[in-house]
Amino acid sequence: MPTIKNVELTKKANIYFDGKVTSRGFVDENGVKKSLGIMMPGEYTFGTNEAEHMEIISGKVEILIACGDSNWETINGGEYFEVPANCSFEIKVLEITDYCCTYIA
Amino acid sequence: MPTIKNVELTKKANIYFDGKVTSRGFVDENGVKKSLGIMMPGEYTFGTNEAEHMEIISGKVEILIACGDSNWETINGGEYFEVPANCSFEIKVLEITDYCCTYIA
Repeated sequence: MPTIKNVELTKKANIYFDGKVTSRGFVDENGVKKSLGIMMPGEYTFGTNEAEHMEIISGKVEILIACGDSNWETINGGEYFEVPANCSFEIKVLEITDYCCTYIA
Repeated sequence: MPTIKNVELTKKANIYFDGKVTSRGFVDENGVKKSLGIMMPGEYTFGTNEAEHMEIISGKVEILIACGDSNWETINGGEYFEVPANCSFEIKVLEITDYCCTYIA
């Protein structure tokens, strides 16, 4: 199974929407801030500070990025989407979804 | 916030009980196998292969260890319990619970 080496892992979980979305923050060996998270089926809105690269490890979501002229897009396991800084996105989680978020400084 | 340095983090999540319990496995710098996980309120039974040291980072649970003569015990955030190898335990999760499991080889 793929692993990420030489990571500094934050012990305390990030818990959002009453536990329907949770994640673990870490910094990789290049100093890049990331998180690995789980989203339960449901609809959520997230705001971004830095730009974000959202890799869907497994699961299925639909997303609508608030800034710019975008439409609802389906993202499956193995695919990704990106959200600009200081923006927000709506997400419909259709199946339990495992993701990796990279914060693009 | 406390972090764990020089970790090898498994990217894919462990998902149990339809997502009510999820965790991320990792190996620490001493080669010890661990996982950081979240349990949603509910009642679950887990079996052990290796012995396990279960640190409750935050939350509240009640546990009953199957082997040996034990009674239900309440474990709060900041406390821990241990389960022998090849045993099982019942757990009543009273609040969203963040935990760190160390597998004792």
